[in-house]
Amino acid sequence: MAAMDGVLDRIDANLPTSLDRLFELLRIESISTDPAYSGQCHAAADWMAAYLTGLGISSSVRQTDGQPMVVGHSTPGGSAPGHVLFYGHYDVQPVDPLELWDTEPFDPKIITRADGSKCIAARGAADDKGQLMTFVEACRAWIEETGGLPVDVSFLLEGEEESGSPSLQPFLEANGEELKADVALVCDTGMWNAKTPAITTMLRGLVGEEIYVTAADIDLHSGMFGGAARNPLHVLATALAALHDDTGRVMVPDFYDGVVEMSDDVLANWQSLGLSAVDFLGSIGLRDLAGEQGRTTLEQIWSRPTCEVNGVIGGYTGDGFKTVIPAMASAKISFRLVGNQDPHAIRANFRELIKRHIPDDCQVEFKEHGTAPALQLPLDSPTLVKGRKALEAEWGVPAAVIGCGGSIPIVGEFKRFLGMDSLLVGFGLDDDRVHSPNEKYEMTSFHGGIRSWARILGELAG
Amino acid sequence: MAAMDGVLDRIDANLPTSLDRLFELLRIESISTDPAYSGQCHAAADWMAAYLTGLGISSSVRQTDGQPMVVGHSTPGGSAPGHVLFYGHYDVQPVDPLELWDTEPFDPKIITRADGSKCIAARGAADDKGQLMTFVEACRAWIEETGGLPVDVSFLLEGEEESGSPSLQPFLEANGEELKADVALVCDTGMWNAKTPAITTMLRGLVGEEIYVTAADIDLHSGMFGGAARNPLHVLATALAALHDDTGRVMVPDFYDGVVEMSDDVLANWQSLGLSAVDFLGSIGLRDLAGEQGRTTLEQIWSRPTCEVNGVIGGYTGDGFKTVIPAMASAKISFRLVGNQDPHAIRANFRELIKRHIPDDCQVEFKEHGTAPALQLPLDSPTLVKGRKALEAEWGVPAAVIGCGGSIPIVGEFKRFLGMDSLLVGFGLDDDRVHSPNEKYEMTSFHGGIRSWARILGELAG
Repeated sequence: MAAMDGVLDRIDANLPTSLDRLFELLRIESISTDPAYSGQCHAAADWMAAYLTGLGISSSVRQTDGQPMVVGHSTPGGSAPGHVLFYGHYDVQPVDPLELWDTEPFDPKIITRADGSKCIAARGAADDKGQLMTFVEACRAWIEETGGLPVDVSFLLEGEEESGSPSLQPFLEANGEELKADVALVCDTGMWNAKTPAITTMLRGLVGEEIYVTAADIDLHSGMFGGAARNPLHVLATALAALHDDTGRVMVPDFYDGVVEMSDDVLANWQSLGLSAVDFLGSIGLRDLAGEQGRTTLEQIWSRPTCEVNGVIGGYTGDGFKTVIPAMASAKISFRLVGNQDPHAIRANFRELIKRHIPDDCQVEFKEHGTAPALQLPLDSPTLVKGRKALEAEWGVPAAVIGCGGSIPIVGEFKRFLGMDSLLVGFGLDDDRVHSPNEKYEMTSFHGGIRSWARILGELAG
Repeated sequence: MAAMDGVLDRIDANLPTSLDRLFELLRIESISTDPAYSGQCHAAADWMAAYLTGLGISSSVRQTDGQPMVVGHSTPGGSAPGHVLFYGHYDVQPVDPLELWDTEPFDPKIITRADGSKCIAARGAADDKGQLMTFVEACRAWIEETGGLPVDVSFLLEGEEESGSPSLQPFLEANGEELKADVALVCDTGMWNAKTPAITTMLRGLVGEEIYVTAADIDLHSGMFGGAARNPLHVLATALAALHDDTGRVMVPDFYDGVVEMSDDVLANWQSLGLSAVDFLGSIGLRDLAGEQGRTTLEQIWSRPTCEVNGVIGGYTGDGFKTVIPAMASAKISFRLVGNQDPHAIRANFRELIKRHIPDDCQVEFKEHGTAPALQLPLDSPTLVKGRKALEAEWGVPAAVIGCGGSIPIVGEFKRFLGMDSLLVGFGLDDDRVHSPNEKYEMTSFHGGIRSWARILGELAG
């Protein structure tokens, strides 16, 4: 632990120059969605490669059909007791509407609030330049203090994350051998709150389906045919109503096969976070949990699978009224999956359930929209155990082991193309205004983030 | 019956000149929806008033805020043993698309088919100039043969039926005393088929409702909130699915209060029409009756009340997929009423049923779209009995006593403003292409229609 203490002291001493380096990166207008900024994206890639090379990390800018990738390796060939691949992205979101910014988006400023707390205001301060620099500065401190990194570290820095990552999959396929490591470290997530760190271990999977129910072959006048002719809106409503029972359980056959119950350890951790239904739902005007009865808020949004109707349309939906019986009605439905649920089985069983509600003289067609299994870092994985230990040591409270309902595509790509799990640690806060005007990153996130990564690297070497 | 035979002989002899007169009327381009044809509408009104006056019926053109009304009275003051008000309309639908017409729409032609059958081709041939002239020519034959009409006849000929009848209600309110009769005769409906006459005795009423279910106060990301936050599309689907039970009965409380069972006589008549589910539904690509189990096709569309969802929308309904949980979902629902069902009670009970399915932290709003009770000519009314007798005498088969799911607003207006029932007799056929290119009216409809009205007038005097 002597080395660790020295590394942490050096991080504290380095903070002013760490900020200087971050500000250099923040000044580069690397907006990937706008072709006018393509040169700036290349400049950011060049800056990152030069920075890493300056640390003794062999790095290069790799061209793609879009913005380039930056790839680096701390110890070519590998010699340390482990190998991690760090992923971050150097591109940022557009800044419109500019008039809503209190500062210039590409002229980073440190803002000191009345209570003495500070934050860094700039486009990309949190998403993702500030976050990725927490890791890079942690590496710098290790190298400056000990002459090297405690584990082998490879870097993959992308420049198209904010524009759908079109080049990522071909790049991973072409360079899998070079990029494969024991585990990926991804710094693009958040803390539970400003004082409680978090590790995102669960990403729900997705099955998207669209259904079209057809009855008559033309729209009908409900005065003429009403009562006798089948109404596809009735058929659809009945089928959709049958997707859940009264207790909120999803009624697709065998739906819960593969769902993993959380360990007592994780449930206790979630209990300690104390997020009530009112806490979570109050801000959006709701009060009562709508999901499975007997499950807490965090279970419902993280560890339990769901079925949601995302859109329905049929018949006359304009102003006023028309007494039509439509020929067709349609709905879009998505399932969020957890654990080892099989998306293909769920799709097939869903279709069977719907077909049971289609009368003999009606038709139903299905259209597939996306299929992704859930991703879960095994709760007993050594990487997760070490990450939790390092974060608790830094922040003085246990790290929240959290889920994420939204998708983080890179995690699935790493799993699919490199067979590699990811440890998702980040220091963003809910109020960082990523993708919005006045994006910011807390000074405590930046400083504590660097220290956290330094500790995680130390633990991974243990 | 001697007079009747003479009248019928005269009708047969008059047929060529009856056609000449109809053609004169058909040549007037009285399209009421297009202001460019306003002068032609006035010309048609003038023509009708001149025609009636020529028969000795005191007639005048009455100005309104829109197209004029033609009003006539056979015997001012009244002396005959009964008094009927005949309603028809002299305006017609637009003729677009003109290129789809085989003949000029305002240059009427008699078309003789290979089998020798004939029809009259022109805009308005069936709707409604041909139909209204069946009645007027019947009056001519009575007057020419006997010197007068067997009952007092008043006429109300409208010029805005095809454009929503905006002037009708104020005109009825202002002239109710003058127009009130024992019964109205309306010639704007059809025969059961080319050989079977029909009397429309039932018009279903209507209650229209729109409902808006609101959950969260903003649209939500289903990855973030899915499972925990209430989805208004689920709430709506469940509420709509609860409107019917498995046997097709409507589950609104007390919904069937006031529903009248048809008499054995009427049910036997419907049985004799032999309309199977396949007959009725086959042409629109369906096969099985969707309404109340144990009710025949004709009961389901004529004498049983219905509840139909006419439109549903909520969430993302464009191309592709968005995993949104919408803040709101909405539906339009209509009820067709029969017998003495109370539309106000049904609206109130429907709202109560829906509210039972709205969770405590969600809201529902309702919007009213139309309220009309059902209309039914009492099955034992002397007018109906006489009409059936006259039609059977003319066509050699019993008249079908039919319902109509669509609305014929004039019938409600006569009931509401003049307290007067209507006898709906017409000679249109399903394939007359009213409102479409190549509108036609069968020669058998025109000739048989004139003879039918002559007989009905005779019966009404009996």
